Amino acid sequence: MEPENETKAEQTQEQEQVVNPWEVSAKGKIDYDKLIDKFGCQRLDQFFVDRVFSLTGRTPHIFLRRNVFFAHRDFNEILDAYERGEKFYLYTGRGPSSEALHLGHLVPFMFTKYLQEAFKVPLVIQLTDDEKCMWKNLTVEESKRLARENAKDIIACGFDISRTFIFSDFDYVGGAFYENMVKVAKCVTYNKVVGIFGFTGEDHIGKISFPPVQAVPSFPSSFPHLFPGQDKLRCLIPCAIDQDPYFRMTRDVAPRLGYNKPALIESLFFPALQGETGKMSASDANSAIYVTDSKNEIKNKVNRYAFSGGQDSIEKHRQLGANLEVDIPFKYLSFFLEDDDELEHIRKEYGSGRMLTGEIKKRLIDVLTDIVEKHREARAKVTDEMVDAFMAVRPLPNMFN
Amino acid sequence: MEPENETKAEQTQEQEQVVNPWEVSAKGKIDYDKLIDKFGCQRLDQFFVDRVFSLTGRTPHIFLRRNVFFAHRDFNEILDAYERGEKFYLYTGRGPSSEALHLGHLVPFMFTKYLQEAFKVPLVIQLTDDEKCMWKNLTVEESKRLARENAKDIIACGFDISRTFIFSDFDYVGGAFYENMVKVAKCVTYNKVVGIFGFTGEDHIGKISFPPVQAVPSFPSSFPHLFPGQDKLRCLIPCAIDQDPYFRMTRDVAPRLGYNKPALIESLFFPALQGETGKMSASDANSAIYVTDSKNEIKNKVNRYAFSGGQDSIEKHRQLGANLEVDIPFKYLSFFLEDDDELEHIRKEYGSGRMLTGEIKKRLIDVLTDIVEKHREARAKVTDEMVDAFMAVRPLPNMFN
Repeated sequence: MEPENETKAEQTQEQEQVVNPWEVSAKGKIDYDKLIDKFGCQRLDQFFVDRVFSLTGRTPHIFLRRNVFFAHRDFNEILDAYERGEKFYLYTGRGPSSEALHLGHLVPFMFTKYLQEAFKVPLVIQLTDDEKCMWKNLTVEESKRLARENAKDIIACGFDISRTFIFSDFDYVGGAFYENMVKVAKCVTYNKVVGIFGFTGEDHIGKISFPPVQAVPSFPSSFPHLFPGQDKLRCLIPCAIDQDPYFRMTRDVAPRLGYNKPALIESLFFPALQGETGKMSASDANSAIYVTDSKNEIKNKVNRYAFSGGQDSIEKHRQLGANLEVDIPFKYLSFFLEDDDELEHIRKEYGSGRMLTGEIKKRLIDVLTDIVEKHREARAKVTDEMVDAFMAVRPLPNMFN
Repeated sequence: MEPENETKAEQTQEQEQVVNPWEVSAKGKIDYDKLIDKFGCQRLDQFFVDRVFSLTGRTPHIFLRRNVFFAHRDFNEILDAYERGEKFYLYTGRGPSSEALHLGHLVPFMFTKYLQEAFKVPLVIQLTDDEKCMWKNLTVEESKRLARENAKDIIACGFDISRTFIFSDFDYVGGAFYENMVKVAKCVTYNKVVGIFGFTGEDHIGKISFPPVQAVPSFPSSFPHLFPGQDKLRCLIPCAIDQDPYFRMTRDVAPRLGYNKPALIESLFFPALQGETGKMSASDANSAIYVTDSKNEIKNKVNRYAFSGGQDSIEKHRQLGANLEVDIPFKYLSFFLEDDDELEHIRKEYGSGRMLTGEIKKRLIDVLTDIVEKHREARAKVTDEMVDAFMAVRPLPNMFN
């Protein structure tokens, strides 16, 4: 483990805040500063936003400008290398545990699509159907089916097929990928994974076997059809910060196997409608806006469930203004409302009480409906043949152009 | 776990006898009765030998007649099914940890070849190069090289290519095989593998991940190119009894996945030249006869190292006779001297002191030299193309004829 304080921090883990790949919960709001401290990653500050702008010549993505992606590991090294003319590849993924994705699921993919376009780099997307089969007790067949369904939503985000390889573990594990799994597994003791992931003796060995599966897409040699002879190619992983434990482990192991440590760029959790105490839950349909929700469902969910920081009465609201720190409609707008000036206007007007919750919710309903409608249109055009094409084990013709 | 006494027996394991897939040691001789008790398998008695004779119409193999294969699990069910006209397949394997095989390594393969011929059934042979990479800290490349070298020795035993599929884990893990690995792993807790295999928290997770890899060749669906739609096909595993822990675990899991429990037929350990306290050790070249040993090396090893049960002086020997219980030349002859009458003659003459150790050793040298010479000739004819052909993922044209 790289930063010395991690293991100790994990041992003295405060129970009021639990963040790991399978659980995100806090008694109050998630304390992201504490999380950065505990995990040992770095804040992603304005310096990086400016640098991305100057290196790519494009306005940085809203998620970067607004600090939705707020933490990193070695992102500076990726940018240094890029500046020297060296390329890298992107790796992100999804555990296909449910049929329909919600907006929180789209966040890393929307951002990854931007990174792919801005830097013109190849991308591998891992669908961990084996993980979900083991953790959610789904059958192999159902996990594989969900992986393909989720692939359609991912493709609908607009990835460039000439630079993107999507794979499911059940399809792809084997060969060089399996060799790397074995190499990683040799370097990590049971005690170590207990320290990182909190496994117990009653957990099945499938769980204990899994971390290497998520680790090895960080190594270019796991994709011999993409990166032959490019074992030193750097990898950048955009993900939500709950995935950090996997990649702390991976970064610890990488140099011992002759690979670069993967770099990370890590996002906040997209909050539940009911308030910012964790990620949205796939098991509570009313906690999230799904990409399959109708305009009416979006309207009802926002109006009924979105936790408001507005005051109890109009009089009090005009006097005190909304508490933007806890206001979910404002949080959601700060993820998805593209126009910086308009968001700033809302911040001032709503925060001072001149705008009312109803007005904010109405604006949010429009913004979300637009995103969901566009996603639905795009997804309707994704055919099974396109899924096959994205998932074909093939060279990528247009990797670095 | 099937027999209730196993786990308890393992918990109160007496340290004077340790038998698991990675260690076979005893203070005195291995107590095979105790092992059968502890593992919960069955003695293979004369009834089985007679039954195999009547079912196959062939004289049972010397290893069966002489109780080298001395224990089993559900071998009766295999024979019952065979009698009803149902077929089965054979599964055996080898961990390719060294370049040259010794005679003990050949025992399961010689016997498996006989079973394949006698019952006319298909055979899968697993080379666990991933296991050896992890346990012996070999590189992936070296493990794969050793797997191919060992495959040549295995092929030299005379297997029928039209009924035999040899695979290395690094080549073959993936697809349906990996799906079965995940299904098995879901059914086995860490505490369970600690109970069965004795892993500790300082063991790397590669070790903890491995038991499913050795388990799943017991299930026909792991070989979709061989047994499509034959998920209920029975599996018989000939192996040395130190591999029993893997298959106890497998048998425990099999019904929960809808498969038959694999049946086992298990051998004694082929003793070291120095005496019967364990298996021969690949790390002590003088403890074993290798298939690469010259006639002279065999002669020297037998004469210098083979532990004798003969008496200190000729006078005492003529008076008391040899102690056949500890005499290695006699043990080796009872593995490899085909002629039952001659062996019986030696037993009487040597046991009574009328034959001397030197005479027995001379006979053994002839017998071993003959086996090793024949093996060497056969192996010299095994080309890389033949290895490729045995290891090709293909249907077997002549499976059940």
